[in-house]
This record gives sequence, C-alpha cells and structure tokens, in this order.
Amino acid sequence: MAKINSNYAKLAAGYLFPEINKRVSAFASANPGVNVYRLGIGNTTEAIPAHILSGLSFGAEKLGKRETYSGYGDEQGDKRLREAIANYYLDVDAKIAPNEVFVSDGAKCDSANIQSIFSRDNVIAVQDPAYPVYIDTNVIAGRTGKFDSKSGQYEGIIYMPCTEEEGFIPNVSSFRIKTGEKFHGLRINLKADLIYLCSPNNPTGAVMNRKSLENFVQYARENKSVIIFDAAYSWYVKDPDLPKSIYQIEGANECAIEIQSFSKLAGFTGVRLGWAVVPMALAVKNSKPGQLNGMWNRRQTTFFNGASNIAQEGGLYVLSPEGRSECGGLVNYYMNNAGIIRKGLESMGIKVYGEDNAPYVWMKNPNGMKSWDFFDKMLKEARVVTTPGAGFGPSGEGYTRLSAFGHTERVQEAVESIKKNLERTW
Amino acid sequence: MAKINSNYAKLAAGYLFPEINKRVSAFASANPGVNVYRLGIGNTTEAIPAHILSGLSFGAEKLGKRETYSGYGDEQGDKRLREAIANYYLDVDAKIAPNEVFVSDGAKCDSANIQSIFSRDNVIAVQDPAYPVYIDTNVIAGRTGKFDSKSGQYEGIIYMPCTEEEGFIPNVSSFRIKTGEKFHGLRINLKADLIYLCSPNNPTGAVMNRKSLENFVQYARENKSVIIFDAAYSWYVKDPDLPKSIYQIEGANECAIEIQSFSKLAGFTGVRLGWAVVPMALAVKNSKPGQLNGMWNRRQTTFFNGASNIAQEGGLYVLSPEGRSECGGLVNYYMNNAGIIRKGLESMGIKVYGEDNAPYVWMKNPNGMKSWDFFDKMLKEARVVTTPGAGFGPSGEGYTRLSAFGHTERVQEAVESIKKNLERTW
Repeated sequence: MAKINSNYAKLAAGYLFPEINKRVSAFASANPGVNVYRLGIGNTTEAIPAHILSGLSFGAEKLGKRETYSGYGDEQGDKRLREAIANYYLDVDAKIAPNEVFVSDGAKCDSANIQSIFSRDNVIAVQDPAYPVYIDTNVIAGRTGKFDSKSGQYEGIIYMPCTEEEGFIPNVSSFRIKTGEKFHGLRINLKADLIYLCSPNNPTGAVMNRKSLENFVQYARENKSVIIFDAAYSWYVKDPDLPKSIYQIEGANECAIEIQSFSKLAGFTGVRLGWAVVPMALAVKNSKPGQLNGMWNRRQTTFFNGASNIAQEGGLYVLSPEGRSECGGLVNYYMNNAGIIRKGLESMGIKVYGEDNAPYVWMKNPNGMKSWDFFDKMLKEARVVTTPGAGFGPSGEGYTRLSAFGHTERVQEAVESIKKNLERTW
Repeated sequence: MAKINSNYAKLAAGYLFPEINKRVSAFASANPGVNVYRLGIGNTTEAIPAHILSGLSFGAEKLGKRETYSGYGDEQGDKRLREAIANYYLDVDAKIAPNEVFVSDGAKCDSANIQSIFSRDNVIAVQDPAYPVYIDTNVIAGRTGKFDSKSGQYEGIIYMPCTEEEGFIPNVSSFRIKTGEKFHGLRINLKADLIYLCSPNNPTGAVMNRKSLENFVQYARENKSVIIFDAAYSWYVKDPDLPKSIYQIEGANECAIEIQSFSKLAGFTGVRLGWAVVPMALAVKNSKPGQLNGMWNRRQTTFFNGASNIAQEGGLYVLSPEGRSECGGLVNYYMNNAGIIRKGLESMGIKVYGEDNAPYVWMKNPNGMKSWDFFDKMLKEARVVTTPGAGFGPSGEGYTRLSAFGHTERVQEAVESIKKNLERTW
C-alpha cells in the first residue's frame, strides 16, 4: 500500500506565483478584452541580443550534423562552460576552480535541490521576506513542523526578519540570542545549520554589504553552518562597494555554496541555465576534504542529466566579451524601468525601496493595506498585476513587490494607470 | 552545525556510468592514440533530422524577436506540447488528458524525482537487473538500509529477479510469497508499495507482454500500490502485440505513473526533454481524487521551472507527422545496429537477448566470466566499451549490455574487433 509524503499537506497554500496566475485568470475571464499590466512575476520580456542568440542557434545547428552532433554530456556541465564560469569569478576577485562549478537548468532547481545533501535534522534559517522556494522545498523534505497561520511561519524554521528599520538586511543576531528570548517579537531557535541568503534580495531588492556578509561568514565558520547564497540578481548591483559574490568575503569558500543564473542576465528565463558552486574547501564537522563537493556531484549525476546542450552553447556566448556587453544593455533596460516605477510611486507619496541595485521595487502599501487586499485593489482598479509582499513571508505583510521586467512603454502605462486610478484613493 | 545526509554514504559505489568513464579514461591515457569502440552508454550518435532540427532552430530564433520572445513558461510544460503528448496516447489506444501530462527535462530526472511525493516508509520493488537510478534515488531518500556487498543488494528493497529462464521478465509472485519464504534464493519482503517497471527493460531489452503487465496492474490495484512505468524505450517495440504504454492495460490509470522520453526517439539525449503522466484517477488508500496529480504538480512547480522552451518547440516538431516519420528512420538505423551486434555475437556462439524490440543487446558472458572482468577484457583486448551487467543489479552478474547506439560502420568494426581479438579465447 503506497503512502504519500504527508509533508506536502503542511504546505501553507499554493505556490505564490500559481496563486497569482489564478487570480489574474479569474479577473481576465470576468473582464474580457481588458488589458492587464504585468509587474508581478520577474519574467524577462526583451529579445535575446544578436550575439547570444547566434550561440543558441549554433547550439541547435550543431545537432543537425553527424560530425558536430552531441548526445549526453557531462551531468556537471560542458567543460568549456565550467571553465568560462570559473573565469567569471576572476572579475569579482574570487577564486573558483572549474570542478567546483556545476552547471544546471537554473537557480530555482539548484536552490530547491541543494538541501538533498544535508540531513533532515538540520535547522534552516531564511530571510523574511524571501523567495518561497527555500522554505517550501524544506517543508517537503520534512525539515519543518506545521504551518502556524497566526504567525505565518512554519515551526522549526528560523526566520530572520528583514525590516524597514534595518534596510531589509538580515541580521546574524537573529540566531545568536539565547533560547527563550524573543527577537522582533518572534520565537527563534538557537542555532542555524543551513542559512539561505539572497542578495540582492528577492523580493525587497536589498543588497547585503560587505560587513553584513562578513558577520554571516564568521558565524558559519564558528558554528560549522553552511550558507546557501543565491546570487541570481547580482548582475543588477551597480555600486562597486557591494559584493556580487559571497566568495568576495574571506573564508566563504569554507562555508558557502553559491547559486547563480543566466535568467536575469541574458533573458534565459525560458532557456533554463544556471550553476551552483560547491567549493572543495567547504566543510562541516567531521567531513572529509572535498566531501560536500563529491556529494553534490553524486546528487547531480544521479538525479539530473545535464542542462540542454543548446542552452549551454548559448551560455558560452553569454560569457564572451560581446555577450557580456549585450547583457549590460539588457540590465540597463530593466534598471531604467525600475527607475520609472520608483519615480512614479514616489510622486504619489509612496515609500519605495530596492530599485538601486536590483530589478525589483519594494513598496510600502498606502494606508497600511494588507498585501493580498492591495494586490486585488491594484488588479481590479488599476489593472496592474503585482506580487503581494506577504507571499514572501510574514515580514512582507503590508508591502508589495513590483517587477521591473517588462516593456518600458508598458511599464510607463502601468505607472500612469496606478496614478490615474488609485492615487486619489490613497 | 550542518549535518550531511548520511544516506549518501550507503551508496554502494560510483554511479555506473561515471565508473565506466573512469576506466575508459584510464585505458585511453595508458594507450594514447588507440581507438576505442563505444558500445557502452546508450548515447545517441546520429544527427537530428531536418524537420525536427528546424523546430529547434525555430525555438531559438523566436527568442530573438520581442514579439515571439518567451520567458518562464508553465512549469508543467507548454500547453501545445501537453496536448500533442495526450494525442500521442491515442495512437496506442490509451486515453490521457493534457492536464495529466507533465513535460520535463528528461526521463532520468522524472524517474529520480517521482519518489518525492511518496513517504519515506514505502517499500520499493525493482527489477533485477534495472537502471540504477531507481535504486540510488531511493537510497538517498532514505528508503533503504545498508548495502550488503555479499548479495549485492540493499536492505529493505524488493528485488524482482529477471532471469534467463523467465525471459528476463519480472514476476509479480516475487512479492506475493509469505514472509520468511525465499524466492530465487533471495530474502524478500512481503509487500511492494512502489513498483518500478521498465519495458523494454534497460539493460536486458526484455519487453513485458500484456499478461505480465496485467498481473502487475492487478496486484497494484488490489494492494493500492503504485507502479512507476518507465517507457523510455517503447519506441523500439516493433511487435504489435507488445504494449508500448502501461495505459494500454485496463485499470492502469488507477495505479500507474508513466515516464517517457524524447531522447531515444528523436536523438534528444543532449537536448533534454521528456514527460511523466500522473493520471487523475491514480489513487492510494485515503487519497482524494486527483490528489497525486496535484502533488506532482506541486513538486514540479516548486523544484522545477519547466523544460527549455527551445527543447519544447523541438518536441512539438517531433510529434508532428513529419517528425514521427523522421524518428522512424532513426529507430530503424539503431535497430539495424542491434541486428549487426546480435548476428556477430551469435556467429561466435554467444547467447544474446533483447535486441528484437529494444536498442540493447544483452549477452551472456562466455566461460561464465564475471561482468567487470569481462568489461575489462573487452576494453583491453578488443578495445570495445560495454556495460557490465552486474552494474544493473546482482542478477545481471555474468552478463553484458551492448548498446546499439552508434555509427553503423563503427558498430561493424567493433563487432569485427571482438571477433578478431576475443573469439579464440572463448
């Protein structure tokens, strides 16, 4: 008699984005012909530039000739691409070897799967608010207790509140306090084993500075914890003083796994390509040198069969000088959108955050409106799809994420629609 | 303090194919310039035919124009592709709805991940020999005890011996016997909760007939077990009386998940595309209607972000009439190779199996040679890479798998090399 994984039943609700899609579809059905502005999902909209596109086309063409055809590649990724990625780290003054790089079909998959190499009894810590995948995958893996709808939290997870007062940056003291003490009024466990950090953060756009990352690295090294660092939005960091990779922090290679993506860099959201770095020096108590690298290698060779060879060929073109320059154009395009959203909202007296070094604008809802109420209001009255802050964790309540991914003219129209239809109600 | 998943340490050895690669690399280094014939991994070698290739190229090109660009698609797959796959099932007289189809990046990933929706205390049953992924992923998930190097088995798994006497077909009576009894001399548990079946089987090439599948479906329905049916090689079944899909068996939609692949059909091994069917009618004890379908949906939307949009566009072309016809040509090409291998080995007095309806030849080693010994002999003396039968389970000991995927002229040379260098030693 087969039994189902009962952890699935613990999941609080639908995954955030399908829930949004459901509400948008319902609105569209009820209002046929009405145009909706999409500032919800962080989905790229601009064409892939010429040089990078030629890489993808070349990847496809090669399969049409026997001499250049390729079947299964290495599960860890094409050797040339692993080398190009290792070289990318030199740009940010970090030293990563090709055999520490594992090419994947995207950062979402790596963020979701990385927990597989750790035992079930690890305590995880997440930023609040954060990308829901970190929590949901650990719920399914059985690392949490029940969801408490009152607090909006799962039992057994350490939530690191990222509040307006602290610039939405997580504070390592979240799990340095003593048992029984309260922090930001929340129940907190004592020690974090696996710490998920996302910088620039999705959804707040907040970027951790060097000092805040150093604090986490110090904590992880002292406690033999592992940091899982999601750097998928690092391409949007303009300020040269802000780290783009955790490996810019000394000692991070002993305690951190980094996850990266081609999605928001090159418009590869649908092409599917990313990577994870599991350094040889990464260690936990009693682990042998290289053991965690070897375990991730085993995980990938057993559960995965490599990213598409066409996508990987495209990835090589992305990391070429021409490709990098084309990506710069894409990044500027979306950052210009972020500026339009910020200025528009500020002109309506709204407080906004994040957009300086990230493609997301994090806004404080007017009149203390709740996240999903404001989501519905924005959809029904301004026809603008947003993402409710509460969907990213209890500390996101009362906030809204606006995505800068979209055609500029549509972003402008969306901002005007908000101004026209909603400003007077605030 | 982070702790590692100790289940990884239970894994008997390296994953089979990396181990083969290691030995081949060592041989190549020791014998520079020596040409090696590859009949090991089931890796496609022929160019993707014109019409299907144009689908892949079109998929890439679309990304270069704003009007046709696409970013994230549905995690479950492009609606058009889900419909085309549902339509494919009509060819085999099975009824599958598009919302029961989940497009993925390949059958390996689905075979590996499907166990996630079941609880840890399910007892799994596997064919012996079988594709190693079924077992290894369940070891990592904690569903087994230790590996017993004497029996070549993990504690807690039901092995269904597929022997020469029974045409290498699994027998449902493997787990119908009483506790304490022995079957084929092996320790057996009483009940199987999750039953992995692969037909045509990798590695033996044996195809389950209607009666044997009916027996399993009956068992599963009576015991509320779930069959995970890997049909990745069904494209090679020529005999019209042999089922290509488990859904050709009445009642299978209540108890079976089917996993399929474009890899061996269209040469998509490197392109990465496959699908899983989780029927709405699939039920276990106390499950609500559609619950398992919903759980797999949740798993995929949480851990996965869809197959590459380029690969999916190619998949649509594969399932078109022109594409299907092109695939027929590829299948015939490899089946011709299988015939060459079979005839060559038979002319040397070797007993071979499988190749009639599968792209693998399963041979009995001469002089009762052990699998890895014979692997080394074939590599060193005939320069032919094979796959040792024992790598697929203890019942594979004494056998060898030869893959029909390769250029015909190389396959011919490989067979001649075996004849020239080894026949006299048998």
